[in-house]
Amino acid sequence: MPKAPVSPQSDLAALGAALRRLRLERDLSQERLSLEAGLHRNYVGRVERGELSPTFEPLVAIADALKVGPDELMQLYLRERR
Amino acid sequence: MPKAPVSPQSDLAALGAALRRLRLERDLSQERLSLEAGLHRNYVGRVERGELSPTFEPLVAIADALKVGPDELMQLYLRERR
Repeated sequence: MPKAPVSPQSDLAALGAALRRLRLERDLSQERLSLEAGLHRNYVGRVERGELSPTFEPLVAIADALKVGPDELMQLYLRERR
Repeated sequence: MPKAPVSPQSDLAALGAALRRLRLERDLSQERLSLEAGLHRNYVGRVERGELSPTFEPLVAIADALKVGPDELMQLYLRERR
C-alpha cells in the first residue's frame, strides 16, 4: 500500500493558506494588507490562492504587514503543509 | 542627527549571506548544493550573491538541501540583516 502523502497540499497552497489565516486573524482585507505591504492587491490575492510564487522581498513585506517575522510565517506555513 | 540604519544591507544581500554561511558550515560547494536542491548552479550562485530574489519553492528547496527548516533559515536571515 502506498504511504500517505506527507504534503497534502502544494508548498504554494500551504503558504497561501497560512497567509490567508493570518490576514483573517488580523481582520484585514486583502486591499488593506496590500496597502500596508506596498504591493498590488492582485499580487497578494494570487499569492493567497497559491497561484503565484512570491519572490523574497514581497514575502518579507507581507509578513511585516501581518506583524509577524518571516521565521514565524514559515512556522505557520509548515503547519499548513502537514 | 539621523538614526543609524536598521538594515545595513539589503534583504537580498542578507538572505544570500545567510545561505552562504550555512553552505560553508555544511562544507558544500555551490555545485553540490544545487544538485541537492534540484536547481541550476547559476541560480544558487546569484541568490547567494544577493543578485536574484528566489521565489518560494526554490527557497524551500535550498533550505531543505541545507538541512534547515525555512523558519530556521529566516532566523539566520534576520541575524544577517541586523
